[in-house]
Amino acid sequence: MSMILYHTPASPFGRKVVVMLHETDLIEQVELEIVQQTPLNPNRDVIDANPSGKIPALRLEDGTTLHDSRVILDYLDTLHQHTPMIPHHGPERWRRMTLASLADAMTESAVQIRYETFMRPQGLQWKLWLDNQHEKIARSLDYFEQTALPELEGHFDMACIGLACLLGYLDLRVANWHWRGEYPKLAAWYTEADQRPSMQATRPEAR
Amino acid sequence: MSMILYHTPASPFGRKVVVMLHETDLIEQVELEIVQQTPLNPNRDVIDANPSGKIPALRLEDGTTLHDSRVILDYLDTLHQHTPMIPHHGPERWRRMTLASLADAMTESAVQIRYETFMRPQGLQWKLWLDNQHEKIARSLDYFEQTALPELEGHFDMACIGLACLLGYLDLRVANWHWRGEYPKLAAWYTEADQRPSMQATRPEAR
Repeated sequence: MSMILYHTPASPFGRKVVVMLHETDLIEQVELEIVQQTPLNPNRDVIDANPSGKIPALRLEDGTTLHDSRVILDYLDTLHQHTPMIPHHGPERWRRMTLASLADAMTESAVQIRYETFMRPQGLQWKLWLDNQHEKIARSLDYFEQTALPELEGHFDMACIGLACLLGYLDLRVANWHWRGEYPKLAAWYTEADQRPSMQATRPEAR
Repeated sequence: MSMILYHTPASPFGRKVVVMLHETDLIEQVELEIVQQTPLNPNRDVIDANPSGKIPALRLEDGTTLHDSRVILDYLDTLHQHTPMIPHHGPERWRRMTLASLADAMTESAVQIRYETFMRPQGLQWKLWLDNQHEKIARSLDYFEQTALPELEGHFDMACIGLACLLGYLDLRVANWHWRGEYPKLAAWYTEADQRPSMQATRPEAR
């Protein structure tokens, strides 16, 4: 029995894991099980594996289950022979983890925007909340555009995967935001990143 | 210049970091800077250090800043001589990280409940969302009560710190939920955990 990854292709956190599986040639070792769920309708298999109901969750061969995406990525990073996705020590380790965390924070905000606009009944939507999630993402994208972009060259690691999956999610779920015009250098970086086989193989389809 | 931790005492994610500083005798090496903010009013110092505006954030002596709480905890865990807060490798590492992640997921749900009931205008509150956040926490607490509790004995590590801070936060911000009656074994565990000097020194006050 191989490992099983519970995920949904449209989830940016699940996509990070699948992109990493492709980048590290581990993809054949993991069975991808797609689960359909929302925060309002968690899936029974997922709850059995992770009582919080969140995905992605990775069931190991011994039956134990790991979550969330960061824990899964930390584990998978010990299974391959390529350059580590997160440096093992030194200042570089925490810098890359911080950049990956910044990408995750943007992704959480983007997911909040999606919940607010798509799931929550229209009469209960709160513009101030939406604006603030949007600002949080904008400030962070600006930080990558103005400051951190040179750090994204070289190895396509956890920080790069997180950022690429966030930008893909914006295109998918916050599609009315034409972020490329505001962050042209980031847009150029993403155009190239998005061509990677790992990104192409995991492109989510809107529905 | 020593390290500076930007945090707010009422935040359960910031509290995790301060509890760890106490548990590992690192507390004297870090200056605690309390910032007042909400997601709607991020603090300028925080934004400079972390564009997402989220706290806790840890400014190192060299001027770089680490975030979020998990990254900070991973870094701090290399600075002390006590038993590691997260095992360095082996199945135990990912098990403890998964339990800590489960505590974090509950904490995120509890923060969502707080935002929904305290920050969002009353007419825009959505009961179904609240109920689902509540259920997510309840399922996870039940998992600790029924299954994972024995794993909380012994070293008071990251998983224990995360869970203790979550339970303290429920008492502070979701105080109408009398969880102790539903999870008596967990309540007994928390009564003892809450007596630790690290927990006593970081007890948030409602306001």
